[in-house]
This record gives sequence, structure tokens and C-alpha cells, in this order.
Amino acid sequence: MSTVSPLAPAQFPNMLAVPGVTLGGAATGYKYKNRNDLMIAVLSAGTTAAGVFTRSKMPGAPVDWCREALTRGKGKARAVVVNAGNSNAFTGAVGARATRAMAEHAAALVNAKSSEVFVASTGVIGMPLEADRLTKHFPALIGQLASGGWRAAADAIMTTDTFPKGSCRVARIDGEMVTINGIAKGSGMIAPDMATMLAFMFTNAKLPADVLQDILTDATNKSFNCITVDSDTSTSDTLMAFATGEGAKHKRVTSARDPRLKEFREKFTEVALDLAQQVVRDGEGASKFIAITVKGATSAKAAHRIGLSIANSPLVKTAIAGEDANWGRIVMAVGKSGEKADRDKLKIRIGPEVVTEGGVVRAGYDEAKVTEHIKTREIEIEVDIGLGKGKATVWTCDLTHGYIRINADYRT
Amino acid sequence: MSTVSPLAPAQFPNMLAVPGVTLGGAATGYKYKNRNDLMIAVLSAGTTAAGVFTRSKMPGAPVDWCREALTRGKGKARAVVVNAGNSNAFTGAVGARATRAMAEHAAALVNAKSSEVFVASTGVIGMPLEADRLTKHFPALIGQLASGGWRAAADAIMTTDTFPKGSCRVARIDGEMVTINGIAKGSGMIAPDMATMLAFMFTNAKLPADVLQDILTDATNKSFNCITVDSDTSTSDTLMAFATGEGAKHKRVTSARDPRLKEFREKFTEVALDLAQQVVRDGEGASKFIAITVKGATSAKAAHRIGLSIANSPLVKTAIAGEDANWGRIVMAVGKSGEKADRDKLKIRIGPEVVTEGGVVRAGYDEAKVTEHIKTREIEIEVDIGLGKGKATVWTCDLTHGYIRINADYRT
Repeated sequence: MSTVSPLAPAQFPNMLAVPGVTLGGAATGYKYKNRNDLMIAVLSAGTTAAGVFTRSKMPGAPVDWCREALTRGKGKARAVVVNAGNSNAFTGAVGARATRAMAEHAAALVNAKSSEVFVASTGVIGMPLEADRLTKHFPALIGQLASGGWRAAADAIMTTDTFPKGSCRVARIDGEMVTINGIAKGSGMIAPDMATMLAFMFTNAKLPADVLQDILTDATNKSFNCITVDSDTSTSDTLMAFATGEGAKHKRVTSARDPRLKEFREKFTEVALDLAQQVVRDGEGASKFIAITVKGATSAKAAHRIGLSIANSPLVKTAIAGEDANWGRIVMAVGKSGEKADRDKLKIRIGPEVVTEGGVVRAGYDEAKVTEHIKTREIEIEVDIGLGKGKATVWTCDLTHGYIRINADYRT
Repeated sequence: MSTVSPLAPAQFPNMLAVPGVTLGGAATGYKYKNRNDLMIAVLSAGTTAAGVFTRSKMPGAPVDWCREALTRGKGKARAVVVNAGNSNAFTGAVGARATRAMAEHAAALVNAKSSEVFVASTGVIGMPLEADRLTKHFPALIGQLASGGWRAAADAIMTTDTFPKGSCRVARIDGEMVTINGIAKGSGMIAPDMATMLAFMFTNAKLPADVLQDILTDATNKSFNCITVDSDTSTSDTLMAFATGEGAKHKRVTSARDPRLKEFREKFTEVALDLAQQVVRDGEGASKFIAITVKGATSAKAAHRIGLSIANSPLVKTAIAGEDANWGRIVMAVGKSGEKADRDKLKIRIGPEVVTEGGVVRAGYDEAKVTEHIKTREIEIEVDIGLGKGKATVWTCDLTHGYIRINADYRT
């Protein structure tokens, strides 16, 4: 379990400071021994916040809290608190009280309102969270936060992750540089005893909360909503963005449509996509990183659905794990997506090789070329539906014995 | 691969004859060596037919053929031909010609129209089917068909199946006995190199084609549409029913609503459910048979969807494979179904033990009892949504190393 994923980046990236943000991690021993499991970020006064949360009908208490705090506090933020080891999900009123205690405790320490403190928890579902075992570590941790604490923070939010995930970009607004940083965790879409997807993005751009929300939602649709590991959805998935405005020299932004945000949106989406792809690269048991591009669908949404149908197919994922050029399973997955498709127009490419054309295997198809490609770590699949202009790319990983080992053999 | 599933019935059932039906199997050596891989059933003149087919947008040539023949021939049938080893799916015009050749060849031999011959193929996707390698065996096979050939026929349609699947019931219409027999194959929802789901049901009741279609559709909704192995949908799934009318002493039936059909519908559905559950019991790599009952949903459809969300969750299936009482994953799967649910009303029972109540783990919950139950081969999960009267049961199996071995390590 401690082996780093073969798909991991060579190293944690160099992260610039984000003016207005200090952060770090501490080891509370709540569940894990000898490692950080509590993360706190403190944000300068005036920081705005935005969030995207799990679509699950069974959200954890921290998700409820963040949603409500965003509304009640009108998108203002002063701190983020995250613990790993207990997700505080399906814990009823006791769970809600524990989250509130964490928020209030941190708020008092940083002299803020509790609605300005956002809480995320990841780990076991259904176990009451003992907040005091965490809050007693808040003063010492807050006392040692630093502008360079990105790696410590990324480490502290991991569960079954095999590597910490960070990303950093610089963007210009009005020609003035701002920093965009992000950290994330996740290695199954969910694994209640262990994983979930959490991501936090920080910038020192000066952005109203509604503009930040628009940018975050748009970036999510192009990144985190385009990845899947096992099709399961966490009760705790949380993606938040914070804009401190500290040291930002650009002029005031009031509209999400402001053309001056073009580069910022691009770089922000790059950070989100980088983090999302790192989550896939740390997919439980993953041995291959798979990019699936669907084009020629009747709409972008249809292309997205067909892409996810392929990406979530256990038979496609096991074929790739087995390095088997079994393209018939891609045909199957397109067919089951429910989206409009015409057997006789379908064109499938795997790596460099066009496999099908006109509803049959292509004359001169060379399976050896597909097999060669599929033996590498980075797999590319392109499916042309041949009906329209809808296009989408999704990313996933293969389904291996490692996934079964992590998820079935965990307690035994 | 040759080991029989631990969930298999003790033996192939005793099957009564169905007057008007003779059938059998032959070994053509097309793909498999030393085993039957071609099945033919010949039906007496006047036999009616009904069919339910894959929803895939990429149906195989035989599925196209059967759909068209049912319409063109107005629901009349004289023969069924099935081959195992090549699914003749994604084979374009060549594939359509091969299916037509098989139907025409059999039609000539039994003195019928080609639209009265139904063809199903299962096996590899995308490989042209060489019809003559099969049709040359038709005369000899047809020469040796027998009213007791059920086991030989069930054997001949298997691919990765580890046991042949049959079921038999007797029902009364007007107090007169008729026989209902069925055979099926399938061990993944699909595995293009190997599996798919095919089922054929036969009765000597005297039923118009539209009545038979109504009974078949209804039975399918209560059986084959309530099972899942891996959420993947075959390009070749075919379920057909045939009514010979031979030796049936009951009076004429003209309406699907006829109350005299009550017992027949029940027994017909029993055969369909028995076959469907046998398919799950032969799920690729299955070590546990799992029945999931959802009640208290806002509608029966909602209950069905929630049930399938649980049954298709890789994390639920791996937890059960690992004999891990990880009920949090059931909460997760309910939450991701998209159907209305209230965290604080959810009640989960696993085997004899109620796990959750009122949005939290039940006071006095005894995990040891769940663990004991989950170590058996037959797992029962009940989820009460607590919102309405919608109820449904679905059946599935666990997700094990065996599934990965069969589907990932197949060629390597």
C-alpha cells in the first residue's frame, strides 16, 4: 500500500507563495500514526470563497456546513480546516455538532466568524468524529503556519493516496501577475474507509465571490467532472477556491464575463486539470493513465457521456490492465451509453492505429501496433461518432488486481 | 477457468419435454475444441415467437435479424440457431450476410421461411463470421434433434459459463397443464471475447404472438432486467420465447389481460427469474450471490434504480468480496443513485442485523453479526428509504480477483 503509484509525477512541484495564505499540517494521531492528518490554511481578511460539492444525496456533515457557510457568510473566508481518517459522514446530529465545533474553534483562534471557516473531512463513514481530539491541536498548528507550507498541507489531507498532489501557475490580469495554487487528495472516487476527493485552490487575485464561483464551476466542468476512477461518488467530495486579493495590482473585476480574465481562467483550469489528472494517476491500483477523446457526437454533453461510459466500463478497464487490444469492448461501451450513435459511422483509434471504419474493422488494421501502444503507461483512445461536432475528453485509469486488493482485502 | 462457480446449482434440472420442440447441440470446432458450440431447436408449424433484445446502439447482426424477422414474419417461428465463439457483432454488411445465410440454410432444411428462423451468436466482437463453417453441420444436427435435448442445447450455447443453465415449470390454463422450459447462457453482462446473455424459453401453450410478447416483456422486467454482473451491456443480448401450441388442451387465448393466464404468467416469470439468477450465480469470478431489496422509495422505478446503484458499485462489490462489513459504501451508493433519499430516514439491514437508523449507525449495532452473515455465500441487503412505497429487488454478485483474472489476464 505504501508503494508510490507508477503513474505519479517525478516530484511534488515547486509552489510559489500565494500572498494572504499561510498553511501547514500536523500529526494528531487520530487514526494514522507518524504522519500529518490535520491541515489548516489561514486566509487574510477580505478573502472570497467559492465551492463545488458532491452530488450525493448522503453528503457528510462538513459538506452541509460548507454549503451553508458559503451562503450565510456571503462567500467570505478566513480559514480552511481538513482532517484525514474520519469523514464525519452519516453521523447525524452528532456529526453536525463536531463540524461546528471545529469551525468555531478555528474561528476563535483567527478572530473570524465561524461562517468564514470551511471544514472538510475524509476517511471512514459512519463513525462519530471526536472533535476535541483534533481541536486541541489547532493552536499549535496555527502558530506554525507558513506561506511555504504547501507540501506539508498536501501530505496532511492524504488517505490511501500514494503521493501528495499540488499544482502552481502564474496568470496575468491587466498585465499584473497573480499566483494560482492548488492541492488535492483522492485515489478512488470514493472508498469510505479511506478515500474521497478533496481539492483546495488559492489565488491572490482580487475577485468577488460570484466571479470566483463562476470560474471554479467552469474549471470543474473541464477537469474534475471529466475524471473517473471507479464510477463511485463520495459523500464528501469538496472542491473549494479562495481569492485573497493580497498584493494583487490589477484593477477591480466585477463581472465573470470580463475579458481581462481570459488568461486567469485558462491557468486556473490548468491547475484544476493538473490536480484532477493527478487524482487519476493515483487511482487505486492504477497501472495505466487513459485519455479518452470522443468527437463527432451530437453534442458536447453526448460526447462527455459516451466518454464516461467507456471510462467506467469494467471490461474496457480490465482489457487495458491486461494489455489486451480488445477494441470490441469500446464498441460495447459506446453502444451502452444511451447516446445517439451509428454503428456504421463509428471510428476508433487506439494510440497511433485506426482500428475501425465504416462499421467494421479497418482493412489493414495492425493489432501489433495497438498492442505495442497498450503496453505503455499512457494510453490514448479516440472515438469518432461521425454524427455531429460534439467533443469531449475524459481521463481514467485501468482496473487491476491492485484495486481489488485495496478495496476487498483491506480488513482481511 | 474450468472450475464450476461455487454458486452453481447442484445439478442441471430435470426438464420435461415441450411438445412441438426438438433440440440439440453439435461440436463444429469453430472456436472451441471438443465441446458443443452450435445449438438448433426446431419448432412445430404454428409456433408463435416474441423477443426482447439489447438496448445497445451497437447491436450485432443477429439482433438486427431477429428484430426484423419478428416483424416481417408476424411472430411466427420454426427454428432457432445459436452459435458460441463468434458474436458476429460489428461485422458490417458481411456480418448481416452471414446471419442471413444461417437463417436461409436452416429454413430450407425445415421447410420454412427464413423469417421464421431466429439466429443468435455469442463470442468475439468484430471478427467476420464464416457461416459455411457452421451451416455445413446443420443437416446432421437437425437429423438428430430430440425432445430431450435440453442439456445438450444448454451446453452448446455456453462461452465462459462454468455451468449450463436450464429451468422447467408446469402451469395450468383452464386446468390444463402446459410446460414452460428455458435455457440461458451468460456470465458477464458482456465480455466480447467470450460472454453475453442469451436466453430461450419454450412452451406448448397456445398463445398469439402479441400475448406471448406481453408475457415475455413483463417477465423480463421482473427477472433479467433486475440482474447485473458488471454494469456492461452486451451488443448481443437476446431473450426469446416460443409457444408451439402442440398438445395444449386449453381454450383459445386472445388477450394478454385474460385472467386465465395468471398462473401461466407466474410460472413463466419463475422460469425467467431462475435463469436470470443462474446467470448471476455464474458471474465472472463470483464468490457471493447478493440479493438487494430496496423499499420505501418514491416509486418502484426509483427503488429499482437505487438497487442497481448499489449492485453496480465496485466498492460495495469489493467490500462483500473481502467479507468486510463496510456498510458506509451502501450509504454512498444510495447517495449517488440520483434518486430522492433522506439521509436521516435511511435504514440499512445486512442479513439479520439492522445497521443504520435515523441517519446514524444503530445503537447496539453488532458488527460481528454482519460479518458472520457476509462470510456466507448468499448475502441479503435491505435498504429502506423511508419516503414512499416503491419497492424492488435486484440480484448481483461480488467483484473479485477472479473477475480481473478472467477479463484482464485472458490473452496474457
